[in-house]
Amino acid sequence: MAIWLEQGAEDFEERFAAFLTTKREVSADVNDVVHAIIEDVRARGDAALAEYSLRFDGVDFSRIGMRVTEDEITAAIAKVEPEVMDALKLAAERIERHHARQLPKDDIYEDTLGVGLGSRWTAIEAVGLYVPGGTASYPSSVLMNALPAKVAGVERIVITVPATGGDINPTVLAAAQIAGVREIYRIGGAQAVAALAYGTETIAPVAKIVGPGNAYVAAAKRQVFGTVGIDMIAGPSEVLVIADANNDPDWLAADLLAQAEHDRGAQSILITDDLPLAKAVEAAVERQLKSLSRSETAAASWADFGAIILVPDLKAALPLANRIAAEHLELAVDDPDALMAGVRNAGAIFLGRHTPEVIGDYVGGSNHVLPTARSARFSSGLSVLDFVKRTSILRLGPGQLRSLAPAAIALARSEGLDAHARSVAIRLNLEG
Amino acid sequence: MAIWLEQGAEDFEERFAAFLTTKREVSADVNDVVHAIIEDVRARGDAALAEYSLRFDGVDFSRIGMRVTEDEITAAIAKVEPEVMDALKLAAERIERHHARQLPKDDIYEDTLGVGLGSRWTAIEAVGLYVPGGTASYPSSVLMNALPAKVAGVERIVITVPATGGDINPTVLAAAQIAGVREIYRIGGAQAVAALAYGTETIAPVAKIVGPGNAYVAAAKRQVFGTVGIDMIAGPSEVLVIADANNDPDWLAADLLAQAEHDRGAQSILITDDLPLAKAVEAAVERQLKSLSRSETAAASWADFGAIILVPDLKAALPLANRIAAEHLELAVDDPDALMAGVRNAGAIFLGRHTPEVIGDYVGGSNHVLPTARSARFSSGLSVLDFVKRTSILRLGPGQLRSLAPAAIALARSEGLDAHARSVAIRLNLEG
Repeated sequence: MAIWLEQGAEDFEERFAAFLTTKREVSADVNDVVHAIIEDVRARGDAALAEYSLRFDGVDFSRIGMRVTEDEITAAIAKVEPEVMDALKLAAERIERHHARQLPKDDIYEDTLGVGLGSRWTAIEAVGLYVPGGTASYPSSVLMNALPAKVAGVERIVITVPATGGDINPTVLAAAQIAGVREIYRIGGAQAVAALAYGTETIAPVAKIVGPGNAYVAAAKRQVFGTVGIDMIAGPSEVLVIADANNDPDWLAADLLAQAEHDRGAQSILITDDLPLAKAVEAAVERQLKSLSRSETAAASWADFGAIILVPDLKAALPLANRIAAEHLELAVDDPDALMAGVRNAGAIFLGRHTPEVIGDYVGGSNHVLPTARSARFSSGLSVLDFVKRTSILRLGPGQLRSLAPAAIALARSEGLDAHARSVAIRLNLEG
Repeated sequence: MAIWLEQGAEDFEERFAAFLTTKREVSADVNDVVHAIIEDVRARGDAALAEYSLRFDGVDFSRIGMRVTEDEITAAIAKVEPEVMDALKLAAERIERHHARQLPKDDIYEDTLGVGLGSRWTAIEAVGLYVPGGTASYPSSVLMNALPAKVAGVERIVITVPATGGDINPTVLAAAQIAGVREIYRIGGAQAVAALAYGTETIAPVAKIVGPGNAYVAAAKRQVFGTVGIDMIAGPSEVLVIADANNDPDWLAADLLAQAEHDRGAQSILITDDLPLAKAVEAAVERQLKSLSRSETAAASWADFGAIILVPDLKAALPLANRIAAEHLELAVDDPDALMAGVRNAGAIFLGRHTPEVIGDYVGGSNHVLPTARSARFSSGLSVLDFVKRTSILRLGPGQLRSLAPAAIALARSEGLDAHARSVAIRLNLEG
């Protein structure tokens, strides 16, 4: 049973505030273990990787290479059902086309003084993509992480994926091939992150590491941050559905359960102004739960973190939605545009009754790596911008320097920085 | 004495690689202390702030308010020299005009299937700017951090600045006023970061915290990251000057010292193809050092981390520059554009002999908050983009859903996610 909150109830604000701060994951403190693994990989390179892979994944690098060969990739792809291959290709094409629009443009110009200014964008040279092993290994995530890097112009994209129990999910290798990634290593955990950050005899280091992982991977990414760039540390997934009375409760229940089945820490929230709909959705959730292969996970998520919030009218949902700042926001209402205008904080918005969030997970074209845990208040989903960086450019001639020098010298002096003042003054034979 | 490296020498690669990994700061492990302070501020709010401010800054909130009043700001500004006020205003105007060009545009469109896609940008609602106390309190940094937020449309910008020993630098208050910031609290350290992240009775929480600080502030920012956004954790400053023979050694020496005077951990590097110039610059550095008020700091930085690298020709400087990935790169050569084309990794590039880096610190218009410690390989300087976030938008009608459904269902099934498949299928009366 999800919790029920009713705006207008006396204790609503208190209960809603408490709801907002509910922790949905227990982050195990694995920092010391991770630190030791990273130092070991730095010191011993491939030998350390071999040892950890044998111990944690049961993979023996004296029998199978660390790098996945072309032949293995070809053989794996042959095992993927044709309809899945086609679906991956359609997804890739749509993702690539959408992300191509995100490429930032250089902006080089002269201002009225004749000072040259500019922003120039360049791709990061090498990026590592961490792909989890086992059931958390999603081919769609390979596309969502690798394709923006490819569109950005990243020359070298490396995948690490643990061959937990010996095998790599063939669909993951298919997705990698479709995304154009050929450098794939069967390693995982903190040791894979360390190898990507510092390099080993076999693996050249990268400049940025992206992709989801367990607590060890997340801790390792935090620890190597600075040496390399990292993406956000994603938490459990969440959806907020804002619905009016004119909805099929079964559709909404399916959407709520699509989040809930991800993870026991996932969160599904319905906000509506219609009590009968709310009750019907709740009943539909209970009914649909029975026929899910991951019903245990979904039921736990719905029971622990699910919520139904009743509001007097849909406009009243907006301030709540902005405080929740959901990763996914569905607007299942007659006029979604009117509501959207009032949404400030959300990772992605899905407009109307025929846009289930799941389309965005796979084939919409937009990215499914989105800010969780209310971080849409200050951050964005993954995009091409995460794989480029901006260099600013400044150009003065003697005339421009003369115009700006007095102000620069005055500020340098007021900050007590003599050499700063001198560096400008000396070029104009002024007093530094 | 800076170190000398000569490309072509047998041990060059080894020495250069070692040079690249030299640590320039000792990061004290203050995590436990900082954690305790943050928890205390969360628990006791203003009372904790009062206690820490009395203990660490000698400020008694029973005698003077936590918030700086309008009267105090006005009185402080009256103390600032008119030429410094004018310089701040010129700088602010130029920074604002340049940053206005960085505002990203929404991109809402329909693809060939009729699927609505889009990226919509919104400003972060509230941002906190940490300003250090004492001699590290730079008015120019107030402008560089606050103005991009203002340009982005951030509605609430809050400054915290410790009144170390009782007073706040009047020029900092002047810069805040010019940047339009009126909400200023005289608190600092980890307690200020905690107050900004979690709020107290007096201070409403913000969604992102930016600005430089000491080891305690940096550790506190790392710890509250996730609850709020943070900017990069900046390290000591650095400059790389690439110079041909046709330079005045005194100009280059002044530029190298302008970095060195910041901090004992700052780094100044000269790369040239001309041995006589290199020797003349070194001599000029020694000469100029004598007349600097911060000569002790500058001398230590130059001795410990300064470097002169000789290359056979200037093109050979490029791969080295890209590995160094300097925060500031000066191209003091006849044809800086030709060299710039080969630069991939740099925070900011200063073109030609009349563009000392110091202009960029104050009045160039570009931002002086730039990636340090080789992080220009994967990150960018502060910009308007740091104060906005992107929401992606997806809109399908029944026709578009029918087109994309089979691929979405195939991928959901291949990932073992039943409820995902159902959420699409149920809307089309298909088999989930």
